[in-house]
Amino acid sequence: MSKTLEEQKLDGEQVFDGRMLKVYRDTVRLPDGSEAVREYVRHPGAVVIVAQLDNGHLLFERQFRYPLDRVFLELPAGKIDPGEAILDTAVRELREETGHEAREWRYLGVMHPCIGYSDERIEMFLARGLSHVGAQLDHEEFLEVTSMPLEGALAAVMNGRITDAKTITALFWAERVIRLGF
Amino acid sequence: MSKTLEEQKLDGEQVFDGRMLKVYRDTVRLPDGSEAVREYVRHPGAVVIVAQLDNGHLLFERQFRYPLDRVFLELPAGKIDPGEAILDTAVRELREETGHEAREWRYLGVMHPCIGYSDERIEMFLARGLSHVGAQLDHEEFLEVTSMPLEGALAAVMNGRITDAKTITALFWAERVIRLGF
Repeated sequence: MSKTLEEQKLDGEQVFDGRMLKVYRDTVRLPDGSEAVREYVRHPGAVVIVAQLDNGHLLFERQFRYPLDRVFLELPAGKIDPGEAILDTAVRELREETGHEAREWRYLGVMHPCIGYSDERIEMFLARGLSHVGAQLDHEEFLEVTSMPLEGALAAVMNGRITDAKTITALFWAERVIRLGF
Repeated sequence: MSKTLEEQKLDGEQVFDGRMLKVYRDTVRLPDGSEAVREYVRHPGAVVIVAQLDNGHLLFERQFRYPLDRVFLELPAGKIDPGEAILDTAVRELREETGHEAREWRYLGVMHPCIGYSDERIEMFLARGLSHVGAQLDHEEFLEVTSMPLEGALAAVMNGRITDAKTITALFWAERVIRLGF
């Protein structure tokens, strides 16, 4: 079935090699035999962490996101370093950004945030049994850590305080795993 | 509070002007007074539609997504044309991609799929009272329309068949509006 939908790469080049963004432009063969151009970002992938404190609250961050020129309320997350195992990324980012370690890690699944123009994947983890050991923010990283109950986070999606799709997607999973017992 | 997180633009330029992707690189002043570079995509915004047939099933599409080199199962969606009202985009995309018109439209909310490196927003709509009038796919657009019950879609997220974050985020909303009655 998908044979009739597939596109074949004919040619391609990198059109922007930024410090963070790597942009490519390929020429492709469409299913009907015609040609088209596809422009996209190559991304190393990322993790997002639903970290539940012993009182049931989830850790959140307030972080300024320059492309949208405002502060977002979002779950802890970060990019995968070259060659790094995804669980190691999750452990590292939770420690660096929120100052917490977790006794219990559970892999939830993967999402794709931006399938139209990026190959980014975001791996989702649930972390429990947290202990505070102190944050180690990267240079150039500014954020505030906060926490709220799962119910409050779900309500914050519905009232528009949380609009970050990776956070909403991870909360979708968290609700099923934490509240509904999957 | 957010004053301590904000970044100020100092200078900026467009570094790639593609057919679809527009990429910018700005120099910014960080909260601690130092400077940093921010690279990001400017996007016209998009809509995604939860379209419920009279039998309760939701309309889905199978579409090949070149950056990830595979077919995705996703909700109908599309970019906002310049100057277009978002409801008009939703009506147009549902018609073009799935061949359906809806008697009843409800605005759900907005999500941001890629806050790290894109200003894209995706406006979510619920469409009901559907009638089939025939699809009008754009040139270069290849997709297959399918449908499934909400329960099946939620299960497809949990078993990894649906990983598109805009689709999962819209299903989060749909579940609350359709099943839980918000």
